[in-house]
Amino acid sequence: MARIETKLAERGLTLPQPLVLPPGVALPFPEVNLRGNRAYVSGAGPLNDDGSLAGPFGKVGVDVSVEDAAALAQKTGLAILAGLKRELGDLDRITGWCRVFGMVNCDPGFQQQPAVINGFSHLILDLFGPEVGRHARSAVGMAALPMRIAVEIEAELEIAPAVA
Amino acid sequence: MARIETKLAERGLTLPQPLVLPPGVALPFPEVNLRGNRAYVSGAGPLNDDGSLAGPFGKVGVDVSVEDAAALAQKTGLAILAGLKRELGDLDRITGWCRVFGMVNCDPGFQQQPAVINGFSHLILDLFGPEVGRHARSAVGMAALPMRIAVEIEAELEIAPAVA
Amino acid sequence: MARIETKLAERGLTLPQPLVLPPGVALPFPEVNLRGNRAYVSGAGPLNDDGSLAGPFGKVGVDVSVEDAAALAQKTGLAILAGLKRELGDLDRITGWCRVFGMVNCDPGFQQQPAVINGFSHLILDLFGPEVGRHARSAVGMAALPMRIAVEIEAELEIAPAVA
Repeated sequence: MARIETKLAERGLTLPQPLVLPPGVALPFPEVNLRGNRAYVSGAGPLNDDGSLAGPFGKVGVDVSVEDAAALAQKTGLAILAGLKRELGDLDRITGWCRVFGMVNCDPGFQQQPAVINGFSHLILDLFGPEVGRHARSAVGMAALPMRIAVEIEAELEIAPAVA
Repeated sequence: MARIETKLAERGLTLPQPLVLPPGVALPFPEVNLRGNRAYVSGAGPLNDDGSLAGPFGKVGVDVSVEDAAALAQKTGLAILAGLKRELGDLDRITGWCRVFGMVNCDPGFQQQPAVINGFSHLILDLFGPEVGRHARSAVGMAALPMRIAVEIEAELEIAPAVA
Repeated sequence: MARIETKLAERGLTLPQPLVLPPGVALPFPEVNLRGNRAYVSGAGPLNDDGSLAGPFGKVGVDVSVEDAAALAQKTGLAILAGLKRELGDLDRITGWCRVFGMVNCDPGFQQQPAVINGFSHLILDLFGPEVGRHARSAVGMAALPMRIAVEIEAELEIAPAVA
């Protein structure tokens, strides 16, 4: 029971609190949107345990090292899992990852986006295994991201119905 | 009947004519692609009532204010609804918004993408309400957009079959 | 039988070998992820016949002409078809293209992304025809792409079950 959460605990990983928005920012949409057997995950950034946005901030390759950015991608994964748990009740209802779109805030010369987003993919594969955790992925460079976060990830998953 | 169009009329909002392409631009794809119970909406920009691309054009934060860009995001929403109406016949066939990808043409230092795309989200929530209108969303900064439009939005929706 | 592959042969087009990664790059995800009746295609770039990344590399409009970039978009289409064939066994199992997200590596002033991604769309429409090949599309400008590729495309398709 609670297979994925047991794995998180075994690895010493914790799910952060819900995003605490900076003053003046309003986000009129849910972190996860369930429609039929699909969960659409809104673009998420890395969070500290208290739900504040996690730094370092700015451009990967200039303000943020590739290693730090990969750690931020892992934190983004934990933030997404926290949102999925709030929406689904149980992370074991996830039957398959479909699509992951990994966005890296970077300058025009940066070309290591895959190494950054691997911080997310390795987490998902470690927790869910190769069959459920398998995901199509893009990892690309954005001109800018909200509130100068270094990494943002959106995703689509396949979900089993809730057990009555 | 025609619940969504009644709401549009009550708010004094009109759906624009189909996109009139600038000379030399060809777009070999539909504005909306129906597959099963999903409508995939091609990346759309803001339109004037006559179907011409709506300005101001260029980079949000430099050439276009955040307030003007939010108004362009609303216009993009109306352009998308116009395309959905042409494809579906009736906007009331929309049973749920799934995913919205909001793209803002901006410089590397811009960080208010959510405030821009809120112009779209507020329109959709106002017209469709919190259950049908609920959408997962990303709002991110692009290096450049076609024909220097300031905002582009793509989306995926859940659709009911046409009534015979 | 093998209708799409017959068309490829008639046009003198060949599918490239699987992507050969540059040293030090690891991609822990499949090129195509099947879930139910959907195939999610990971962000792909243009390949040479031997699976090496195809140039020219860099920014379209500066390092790469629009014409060369459109040819790279066609090559990206062939790379995606090669991945779909490996996963599906038979390209004729594709019953409908859903969504295509076309990313162009470019400077902030570039605005001809549609002309570039048309190299992909024309290939798909030519091979699959207007009903199956029809796709929703965005064509947008990215700050940077992995390994300086000029074009990257991700997609979602509808797939028929394998015949036993």
